[in-house]
Amino acid sequence: MHDVAHPTHQEQHFESTETVRDIVIGLSDGLTVPFALAAGLSGAIASAHLVVLAGLAEIAAGSIAMGLGGYLAARGDAEHYAAELLREQDEVVTRPDDEAEEIYEIFEQYSVPREAATPVLQALQANPAAYVDFMMRFELGLEAPAANRAHRSALTIAVSYIAGGMVPLFPYMLLSDNFAALKLSVAITLVALAAFGGIKGRLVGTGTLRSALQTTLIGGAAAAAAYGLARLLNHA
Amino acid sequence: MHDVAHPTHQEQHFESTETVRDIVIGLSDGLTVPFALAAGLSGAIASAHLVVLAGLAEIAAGSIAMGLGGYLAARGDAEHYAAELLREQDEVVTRPDDEAEEIYEIFEQYSVPREAATPVLQALQANPAAYVDFMMRFELGLEAPAANRAHRSALTIAVSYIAGGMVPLFPYMLLSDNFAALKLSVAITLVALAAFGGIKGRLVGTGTLRSALQTTLIGGAAAAAAYGLARLLNHA
Repeated sequence: MHDVAHPTHQEQHFESTETVRDIVIGLSDGLTVPFALAAGLSGAIASAHLVVLAGLAEIAAGSIAMGLGGYLAARGDAEHYAAELLREQDEVVTRPDDEAEEIYEIFEQYSVPREAATPVLQALQANPAAYVDFMMRFELGLEAPAANRAHRSALTIAVSYIAGGMVPLFPYMLLSDNFAALKLSVAITLVALAAFGGIKGRLVGTGTLRSALQTTLIGGAAAAAAYGLARLLNHA
Repeated sequence: MHDVAHPTHQEQHFESTETVRDIVIGLSDGLTVPFALAAGLSGAIASAHLVVLAGLAEIAAGSIAMGLGGYLAARGDAEHYAAELLREQDEVVTRPDDEAEEIYEIFEQYSVPREAATPVLQALQANPAAYVDFMMRFELGLEAPAANRAHRSALTIAVSYIAGGMVPLFPYMLLSDNFAALKLSVAITLVALAAFGGIKGRLVGTGTLRSALQTTLIGGAAAAAAYGLARLLNHA
C-alpha cells in the first residue's frame, strides 16, 4: 500500500505526485479492507444490518487511523527536514572543515578524486544557501516538503479511504438478502479495484493491465481469506 | 502510518531500518484498526463471539492487503530501479553529451558553474560504473533496493499486523461479557499503543513521550469514532 509513487522527477510535478500517492494509499486500503471484512462477515452472519454496521465502523476506524497517521508522518517529515536544515546551516558556518570533508566523502563514493571535487566545493562555499541545499539533498537524501502538506495529506487519505470503503458496502445497504448483496459487492468491488489499479498503473508507470490485475488479486485474496476464516470459525 | 523511518544515513544501517519500518507499518495499523473495530462493534452488539469473528476477519483481510501491498510495492521499486539502471547504463554509452548536460544541470541547481563541475564530470566519465551510480542517486534520487526485500517485507508487515491485531481481541476471547471485555481491551491496547509508540519514537528519533502520545491518540480516536458511529447507527 505504501510508497507507490516513484521518486523520479519529483522536482517537476512534486505536488500532484504527492496528492496522487495519498489518493492511492487511501483508495487501495479503502477498497480492499472494508470489502474483505463485509465479504467475510456475510459468510458467517445472516444480518445485512450487522455487515453494514461492521463495515461502517471499519471505515470510521480505518479512515481516522490512516488520515491521522498520514498527518503525523507528513508533519514528522517536515519537522525532521527543518531540524536537519538548521543543523546544516549551523555546521556550514561553525565547522567548515568537517563540511568540506563530507563533500569530499560524497564524491569519493563515486571515485571522484579530491582535486576534481575541489572546484565544486569552492563554488558551494561561495554560496552558503546552495551549499546547505546541496548537503540536504546529497548528504542526507532529504527533499524540502511542501508547505501545509500534513493537513492536505490527512484529508486526502481519509476521504479516499471513505470513498473506497463505501463501494463494497452499498449492496448490503440496498439488498436485504446477504448472499445476493455479497455477490453484487464482489462484482462491483472487483471492477472498481481493476479500474483503480489500471489508472494507478498508468500514473506511476508500472503498466495498466498488470497493475489492474495486482489490485484485483490483493482485494480478492483478502476477501477470500476473510470469508473462509469467518465461515470456518462460525462452524467451529 | 507511512514513511515513518527517515532516510538519514540509510547507507549505514539500511537493512535494519527497512525491517523496522515494516514492523512499524504492520504494528501501528494492526494495533489500531482491529482495536477500533472491536470497540465499535461492542458498542452495538451483545455477542462477544461476533466481535471476535469480525476482528479476526479484519485481521485476515488487513494482514493480506498490507502484506501483499508491501510485497508489490517492494517488487515495483526493485523493478523500477533495475529498469532505470539499464536506461542509464545505455545512455552513458549512447548519449554521452546528453548525460554530460544532465550533470551540469544537477550542479547548476546549486549555483555551481560549468567550469567547476567539469573536473567531476571528467572523473565520472573515466569510471562508467560510478557515473551510472551517480546518476541513479543524484539525477533520479534512487537507492539500490536490498535483494529479496519484497518477500521479507510482505511477511514482516503481515506478521506484525496479526501480532498487533490479536492484542485488542484477547479480552473478547476470554470474557463473555462484552462490556467487561471492551474495558479490558481498551486498557491493554492503549498501554500497548503507548509502549509501541514510545519504542518507535526512540528508534526513529521523534522522541519517546511524544510518539507514545501520538500513537495512543490515533488508536483512541479511531476506536472512539467507531464506537460512537456504531452506537448511533444501532439506535437509528
